[in-house]
Amino acid sequence: MSEALDIPSIVSTLKTILPAQEQIPLHEPEFNAHANKYVNDCINSGWVSSVGSYVTRFEQQLAEFTGTKHAIATSNGTSALHICLLLSQVNPGDEVLLPDLTFIATANAVRYCHAIPHFVDVDVLNLGVDSIKLKHYLHTIGRYENGCLINKHTGNKISALIVMHSFGHPADMHSLLDCCDEFGLKLIEDAAESLGSYYQQQHTGNFARLSALSFNGNKIITTGGGGAILTNNDDLADKARHLTTTAKIPNTIASEHDQLGYNYRLPNLNAALGVAQLEQLAQKLQQKRQLAQYYYEHFATVTGVSIFKESVHCKSNYWLNLLLLEQPSVNNRDNILRQTNEAGIMTRPAWGLMHRQKMHKNCPRMADLENAKALFSSIICLPSSPQLMAEHQ
Amino acid sequence: MSEALDIPSIVSTLKTILPAQEQIPLHEPEFNAHANKYVNDCINSGWVSSVGSYVTRFEQQLAEFTGTKHAIATSNGTSALHICLLLSQVNPGDEVLLPDLTFIATANAVRYCHAIPHFVDVDVLNLGVDSIKLKHYLHTIGRYENGCLINKHTGNKISALIVMHSFGHPADMHSLLDCCDEFGLKLIEDAAESLGSYYQQQHTGNFARLSALSFNGNKIITTGGGGAILTNNDDLADKARHLTTTAKIPNTIASEHDQLGYNYRLPNLNAALGVAQLEQLAQKLQQKRQLAQYYYEHFATVTGVSIFKESVHCKSNYWLNLLLLEQPSVNNRDNILRQTNEAGIMTRPAWGLMHRQKMHKNCPRMADLENAKALFSSIICLPSSPQLMAEHQ
Repeated sequence: MSEALDIPSIVSTLKTILPAQEQIPLHEPEFNAHANKYVNDCINSGWVSSVGSYVTRFEQQLAEFTGTKHAIATSNGTSALHICLLLSQVNPGDEVLLPDLTFIATANAVRYCHAIPHFVDVDVLNLGVDSIKLKHYLHTIGRYENGCLINKHTGNKISALIVMHSFGHPADMHSLLDCCDEFGLKLIEDAAESLGSYYQQQHTGNFARLSALSFNGNKIITTGGGGAILTNNDDLADKARHLTTTAKIPNTIASEHDQLGYNYRLPNLNAALGVAQLEQLAQKLQQKRQLAQYYYEHFATVTGVSIFKESVHCKSNYWLNLLLLEQPSVNNRDNILRQTNEAGIMTRPAWGLMHRQKMHKNCPRMADLENAKALFSSIICLPSSPQLMAEHQ
Repeated sequence: MSEALDIPSIVSTLKTILPAQEQIPLHEPEFNAHANKYVNDCINSGWVSSVGSYVTRFEQQLAEFTGTKHAIATSNGTSALHICLLLSQVNPGDEVLLPDLTFIATANAVRYCHAIPHFVDVDVLNLGVDSIKLKHYLHTIGRYENGCLINKHTGNKISALIVMHSFGHPADMHSLLDCCDEFGLKLIEDAAESLGSYYQQQHTGNFARLSALSFNGNKIITTGGGGAILTNNDDLADKARHLTTTAKIPNTIASEHDQLGYNYRLPNLNAALGVAQLEQLAQKLQQKRQLAQYYYEHFATVTGVSIFKESVHCKSNYWLNLLLLEQPSVNNRDNILRQTNEAGIMTRPAWGLMHRQKMHKNCPRMADLENAKALFSSIICLPSSPQLMAEHQ
């Protein structure tokens, strides 16, 4: 056990910050009265399925909020990401670069395309893909063939990079865009966790041609299950709508389909909930920033730990607040997780690193994933529901 | 134009049968007061996402209604079918037999496994796969290699047969089970359209090891979007739950996954609607049988057409009532479709045949798909909402 670390003081600090409830969840949804109203209206209209006015409203309001031209609502974030990859011409056998520190869905979506996830290290300052390491790495392992980047070791084409805005913190988009330009990679943003997060005043999901959002139950706003594809490109928006609607040829009474399509549209019932949730988003973001600041201040005097802060020029939605254990305190991570959960304060480690999942053992990766490994050992996710702040006050 | 066919009398017969509304949809959902109640309760509980008591209730009640041991609720019928195929060990490159007359999702699910749809003809008496033609065909094109059925022409393994209960009418399950036994094929039932349909007193979805249901907005009951996997096998049920829940290793606070998984679970919000809809199912089935009988009686005296009836030993849910045009009246199909839709009576042709979809042009198929072609030319789907009967009375 590290001398520097005082576990009881971590638990007691959390108890001071958090409301006196028996159980504090990691991230709990909260609904306004309009949630019931809109969902009832949706049921009473009979339009509960994938066509309906709430889908249209939800999409328009999402586009407006994120500053993108088009939002296409989908059944979840994973399905949104799958379509982003298909529309980025990721072909079977291609390699797709993605951060070692991400949720499993990022890698799964690559596998759905029968492409190969290729794991790269992250930046300790923003938790996103480390652009400097990535450039160096691609210069080392890459060669060109007919203008395409080829992995020298596997012979596969490396066709795309998925950037993840982990826990709501924007990745270093300008350097990553540079890198994609230099190596001819398609860029996709996995913005599942970053609704309300900005990089240099621009909403995440605006930098790539195609991005994915998620509205799973643990996200800042939820539709039960749901997601969205964001794009500023009219043609890609049309294609995304077509692919997510079983590729049915529109405006005909016949049931004819012109390519392999998917049943990936968000039902109107879920969109109705989403419209109500969007009304609360600004307030939730404000509460989450207050909560983050509160955590930051209270842990400033606790030895051996710190609260992760947004990078310069970035505004994070602080989806999940992260307690970072300093070296050598990382050996105490599981102790802290156990003691906080036993005290009714739900905490979690970071997502298991991608290269350590058993189905990824043969996937290509950087030999040096030290930042991801260090972060994984060091991160404890803290309760982050926006209403925690309101409840405390 | 066929002398035998009197289009104005078809339109006027429909007007007699159907309520005097400006627009009669093909199949419209109807909700009881519990739909609002349960969905509000779900929102107020905060449990709107993929874990919750309505999911459990919906699954239990589905299992009970269909007489299967397990029902696993999914995001839609397509995702249910995808999992059925994966759990039937359908591997990339395998061929999967399926009827030429089906909805596109049946073939899409095969393609998601990177397997190859192989189209076979249907039986004009029950609209399902023609077992006699299939046996003859497999004897002709099949050979065995290490106990596996191989398509002589392509060299691919033929690993499974998907049986579709089209428009709610049960396929000839005993003969098809025989055929699967004889040729060593895995059997999967696409029961997307047949909730409430029975073959020899046994609910459809009980004959295969794995079956798929759908609760899309146009189905007999709806959850907005949703589906379910049915199975009587405990091990397959566990695996289906695991695969549809991103293959996350359960009962641990870590986020570790042991195989490629999917985000395919039904949200609790949608399940709440499903629980309310199941309360109405018995009544809907009764109304649909009345409506079918009503169509049958009124069209008995109209020349050149007939109403499709359930087979002996079968009880159909009559999901969509079918008007069949007799040869040579089939040339008038599009005229009838046009005139009925212009009169505000929504009618549709059958799903476009699988072998005619442009992305299937290189897929293997029976040379003789005459029954499917004849049915496609002859079928007109009629308005079939259960409440049409109540409204008329």
